[in-house]
Amino acid sequence: MSEIIQIINARLVEGNSLVSRSLWIDSLAGIFVPSPDPALVKVKVVSTIDLQGRILSPGFIDLQINGAYGFDFSEDASKDAAGVSYKNRYSETRQKLIKTGTTSFLPTMTSQHAERYHQNLPFLGPSKSRNPFEGSESLGAHCEGPFFAHNRMGVHLPEAIQSSGPSSEPELVIRTYGASNLFNTTPPNSQEQESEPGKIPSHVRMITMAPERPGALSTIQQLSNKGIIMSIGHMAANYTQAAAGIKAGAKMMTHLYNQMNPHHHREPGPLGILGGTMDINPENETKVILEENDSLHHAHHDPRPTRPYFGIIADGHHVHPASIRLAHLTHPEGLVLVTDALMLLGGEDGTVDWLTRRLTKKGIKVMLEGTDIIAGSCVTIPQCINNFRKWTGASIPAVLQAVTSRPASILGMENVKGSLRDGADADFVVLSEEGVLGQSVSELVVDQVWKFGVKVFDRDLE
Amino acid sequence: MSEIIQIINARLVEGNSLVSRSLWIDSLAGIFVPSPDPALVKVKVVSTIDLQGRILSPGFIDLQINGAYGFDFSEDASKDAAGVSYKNRYSETRQKLIKTGTTSFLPTMTSQHAERYHQNLPFLGPSKSRNPFEGSESLGAHCEGPFFAHNRMGVHLPEAIQSSGPSSEPELVIRTYGASNLFNTTPPNSQEQESEPGKIPSHVRMITMAPERPGALSTIQQLSNKGIIMSIGHMAANYTQAAAGIKAGAKMMTHLYNQMNPHHHREPGPLGILGGTMDINPENETKVILEENDSLHHAHHDPRPTRPYFGIIADGHHVHPASIRLAHLTHPEGLVLVTDALMLLGGEDGTVDWLTRRLTKKGIKVMLEGTDIIAGSCVTIPQCINNFRKWTGASIPAVLQAVTSRPASILGMENVKGSLRDGADADFVVLSEEGVLGQSVSELVVDQVWKFGVKVFDRDLE
Repeated sequence: MSEIIQIINARLVEGNSLVSRSLWIDSLAGIFVPSPDPALVKVKVVSTIDLQGRILSPGFIDLQINGAYGFDFSEDASKDAAGVSYKNRYSETRQKLIKTGTTSFLPTMTSQHAERYHQNLPFLGPSKSRNPFEGSESLGAHCEGPFFAHNRMGVHLPEAIQSSGPSSEPELVIRTYGASNLFNTTPPNSQEQESEPGKIPSHVRMITMAPERPGALSTIQQLSNKGIIMSIGHMAANYTQAAAGIKAGAKMMTHLYNQMNPHHHREPGPLGILGGTMDINPENETKVILEENDSLHHAHHDPRPTRPYFGIIADGHHVHPASIRLAHLTHPEGLVLVTDALMLLGGEDGTVDWLTRRLTKKGIKVMLEGTDIIAGSCVTIPQCINNFRKWTGASIPAVLQAVTSRPASILGMENVKGSLRDGADADFVVLSEEGVLGQSVSELVVDQVWKFGVKVFDRDLE
Repeated sequence: MSEIIQIINARLVEGNSLVSRSLWIDSLAGIFVPSPDPALVKVKVVSTIDLQGRILSPGFIDLQINGAYGFDFSEDASKDAAGVSYKNRYSETRQKLIKTGTTSFLPTMTSQHAERYHQNLPFLGPSKSRNPFEGSESLGAHCEGPFFAHNRMGVHLPEAIQSSGPSSEPELVIRTYGASNLFNTTPPNSQEQESEPGKIPSHVRMITMAPERPGALSTIQQLSNKGIIMSIGHMAANYTQAAAGIKAGAKMMTHLYNQMNPHHHREPGPLGILGGTMDINPENETKVILEENDSLHHAHHDPRPTRPYFGIIADGHHVHPASIRLAHLTHPEGLVLVTDALMLLGGEDGTVDWLTRRLTKKGIKVMLEGTDIIAGSCVTIPQCINNFRKWTGASIPAVLQAVTSRPASILGMENVKGSLRDGADADFVVLSEEGVLGQSVSELVVDQVWKFGVKVFDRDLE
């Protein structure tokens, strides 16, 4: 027996449109369902909710968040034997995080020594539970580092990156994270129908590494073949080296622009691959890999090139709005908004202890104490959404795709997450548009958050 | 009495499509005409030309070409009293240039002392004649310099730029070029129906200047109001200063990427304005100026921003192909292919005298002798077209627009040049597609060139 909730008068995010239609949820199964047989509606429907024209979006997915509300996912989980303190703090953070509309996320570990990965990653793997009251759901950990360019480490722990040595050979990488944290031999569960046996990621879902280090391409190829999402970043790669990372199997670039070589018109750097990973030899022959409204074109083209997804930190501090607009115009289907938030998300201005060092927050800026080195952000996904809309003029559905269906696609979970389709998890957000004095663009405000078909946040009840 | 030529079996470039239809030319008036009354066809049609499926494009327009075939437009025109030698050499160059498909161009003077402008510009103004046998038609001179950033002069004459001083006040600029070279009080002729009296450019049609110099914005505003096309370039402008140049009235950026500040993600530089010239204050409120498929969006937006046109030198040397693709993807409707060719176009490899200095040509590279400073190009428009197609995968009509209708629009001549519409000048090019071994994209080859309705070049007859 199901319990069906009908939602009426909502504007639903479907692709590039906002569509007014009813939506049906099975609140016991926690999924969206087709409109039930009218003859049965009276029996099964437990409630009808009128959203009065508000926007209903899939829940937000944050692919890169290092911590929030005073907790850092890379903190020492071994302070007590069973990691009870770490578990409790992680749980509290997830409870708070879901109120921002982020119903799923990749808890992201900054560069650490091997021991810390072995201790922490088992806590950060995919949440197995479908209990709607456990807060934001982990879809697996994101290991950002330590296999980085030594001159592009940002505020990551230098000792951890240096101790990773100069190479990124598969064996070293697997040993650092721990094989059991990477690979899982249990059969796929219902959430991961698309995974084949042997391709089921364990606790780690995504890894960011620099593609130019020796062995990195081989590692990218091996791990992506095993179902781990590889992203290139914190790199000294030139255009060709970044392209090689994508060709080897990396799907994404981690926080585009930050911790990578700048664009130069004769050495385009990683930014250049937004247009595709073409082999270029301008003075001789060149392979074409881009097609564009080219149905009239007679010659045979090579297949459409791989164009990477890319994260953008739209906090107004990491990247100039015009650069965000440039990347968006160049490759709108690739852009994903990530917070790159640290424990100072939700905190006050001031200086706090952060792992082995200290961070200073000043408005939207978070810096390593006593320096002007940017250290992650303190913004939420809704803040990123509103910034992005103001700076690009992108439509509401276009912006929401960048935090819902697109990150879900990167993870290969497009049928389960980031979608309102039948059978997908009923994780969603109800948004109001509010006018802002002196500003021509409305702001989106999170009114309600639903997890597995149950309302877990209501602004009116806070 | 007209003489009508009918062209059949041509694929015509019309907007984003290649359209198979007949085309009619009045070869006495030198314009395209509507399909004549069938009852009269027998009387009037002097010939029917079967193009056997070849492509018929409007003639190419090169907005930036400094010389070709051993001649430089900035050479001393006063060597003999009436400039006979200069005139003859200019005429020969135009005769050769038209064979490349470039039926119109802006003869471009590099940075010179005032005296040289006063001597040369009267020779370089719009060709008044409609004689089809005079070669490529000048649509007016392009003055590239001397009001440049002193650290972005490239190979332009340093003394000329330095003697222009630090400012670009309108009075100084007008005095340097000579008022009579800029403004014309005679009534508009038939070619410039769109011009209003008082807005008729004289010999100078376009000026490139750096927008950040004192007085430049005022000059840009005054001269663009008088009908001169202002382009920003050879500049030290940051994002905001480049945007200010566009807001003041400049329509274009001269050779994007070359001789301008590089893009940095927190100081986007001139490249950043390809997305629009938004006022940005990321930490406070921001005005949105871009709209994009935003019909579902309820809030009021500011008007669509000015996004500049921009020249690109697609020779494989000035700019990396991936950077060209990036600019094309960011703002496809803004891109114009220019050759920036020098007198070495059509010449052999080696070193030659060039004005007061010497140039070395080595394959596609032209450099100041003994340096690696790039000095213009030696490519033709067809070479740029074929490079651009290979590197971007853009469709044939899309590429051809970048050398026909788009430069015509910049000049405000879209009804007269760069178009196959009725009443436009019958300047056109017949192109074959030829396969290239080991290359997936065909190359376009100029088979015929027509000027004012008369065939002036035929590859089969050369």
